[in-house]
Amino acid sequence: MTQAVGLPTHPRDVRELIRRRDFTGITAGVSPGYVQANLAILPKDLAFDFLLFCQRNPKPCPIIEVIEAGKIEPSQTAPGADIRTDLPKYRVYRYGELEAEIEDISDYWSDDLVSFLIGCSYSFENAMLDAGIPLRHHEQGSNVSMFITNIDCVPAGMFAGPMVVSMRPVHHSKIVKAVQVTSRFPNTHGAPVHIGEPHAIGVDDPTQPHLGDALAFKDGELPVFWACGVTPQAVAMESKPPLMITHSPGHMFITDLRDEDVAVL
Amino acid sequence: MTQAVGLPTHPRDVRELIRRRDFTGITAGVSPGYVQANLAILPKDLAFDFLLFCQRNPKPCPIIEVIEAGKIEPSQTAPGADIRTDLPKYRVYRYGELEAEIEDISDYWSDDLVSFLIGCSYSFENAMLDAGIPLRHHEQGSNVSMFITNIDCVPAGMFAGPMVVSMRPVHHSKIVKAVQVTSRFPNTHGAPVHIGEPHAIGVDDPTQPHLGDALAFKDGELPVFWACGVTPQAVAMESKPPLMITHSPGHMFITDLRDEDVAVL
Repeated sequence: MTQAVGLPTHPRDVRELIRRRDFTGITAGVSPGYVQANLAILPKDLAFDFLLFCQRNPKPCPIIEVIEAGKIEPSQTAPGADIRTDLPKYRVYRYGELEAEIEDISDYWSDDLVSFLIGCSYSFENAMLDAGIPLRHHEQGSNVSMFITNIDCVPAGMFAGPMVVSMRPVHHSKIVKAVQVTSRFPNTHGAPVHIGEPHAIGVDDPTQPHLGDALAFKDGELPVFWACGVTPQAVAMESKPPLMITHSPGHMFITDLRDEDVAVL
Repeated sequence: MTQAVGLPTHPRDVRELIRRRDFTGITAGVSPGYVQANLAILPKDLAFDFLLFCQRNPKPCPIIEVIEAGKIEPSQTAPGADIRTDLPKYRVYRYGELEAEIEDISDYWSDDLVSFLIGCSYSFENAMLDAGIPLRHHEQGSNVSMFITNIDCVPAGMFAGPMVVSMRPVHHSKIVKAVQVTSRFPNTHGAPVHIGEPHAIGVDDPTQPHLGDALAFKDGELPVFWACGVTPQAVAMESKPPLMITHSPGHMFITDLRDEDVAVL
């Protein structure tokens, strides 16, 4: 992945630009090689059940870091950062309804809020590209295809719902390699959840996604499905919490972790 | 590892014996190939911080399953089991002081308690034996050596403290293999935390353990250190919770998971 034009490379410097609102765009391609994260902020009384939901469903909900109530710094993955200002765009939901899309959530902040940073697919997509596996949604300049499956997540408290998956067409000659390289990244969704019979997971037509964009298949390509970070947000939203704040789609939090820091083996 | 004499193989059948108090011994060698777990039971108001502590310190505190307040069944890893009766021996602590060692905790149970099952080293020890790496504490018929290191766990809420590690002497010709095979088991402590310079982690003399038994070294063997499941219990105990229930040392909970179920790659 090439570096976004005109931006510094190190996440600390990029976050500084974001905090000053000198950069408010999507973060795809920004600080290549560093781990980016989805954000979900919830009131403290829901935090145990949500953390437990993530623990029970590590493929769609891999926790990168949790910031306790009363704190605003992701001290393990981005020392010095401020979770209220250092994402380029946020969404604020009240009882499951979108209330605002803003570049700073300081006005919504209270010491009652717990912030969850959840792994995203960029890390394993870099590994796929490095392994010579092309990504159709990059080639098309579109979003990845996503499907709501018939796979139930393991519930926790009020949190329950189906697993959402992303789909990438992979040539049959590259499927084994795709499993191998993504298996190294269990903290960013990891190995595929399905190969071979889309109907079995509730996907009738891999060319007709439920979310995101349709992707063209080439000869010899099969649909390969990975757990998707949309899952925890969708599940949390279903519970209609009094307040929930997330990143705006594509506007992720950029940590100081390198992709290799979250790889196994 | 050979099967304990006279016991059935499947964990479900062993738990049935334990529940009837027909088996109250240590579980080493029982149901070989199945995952065993450490137990820590805490009041609900400490559960979020303890779960977060485990999430932040996955090497010493790998969560196998959490049973919410009000429930007694580890439904994901041992359907039908009862956490109050299906371990051969428990310890009950009040404000950090041992109050009782008993075979059934039903009298102490309340709907306010959350149960944590935490991975133990048996799974990766089986993998080491399969890989031809001898285990000195098995040969000696003793406990493994344990040390309280100078490595601070990442704190969460009231939970903080040093990492406890176990030590196994490994011949230099087998050290690479020992790293490889244990790396496959991140949910049961995984790869070593240290090789090569014990002083660097606060271990002055590898033959003088802080806990457990001393192990003899043979020519060409080095001390290799793994994160130890004693860590979360020691840390929780330090916080002197009003009630904490654990397994009695060596008397683990036997799940229905096979070792391979918790392996990566």
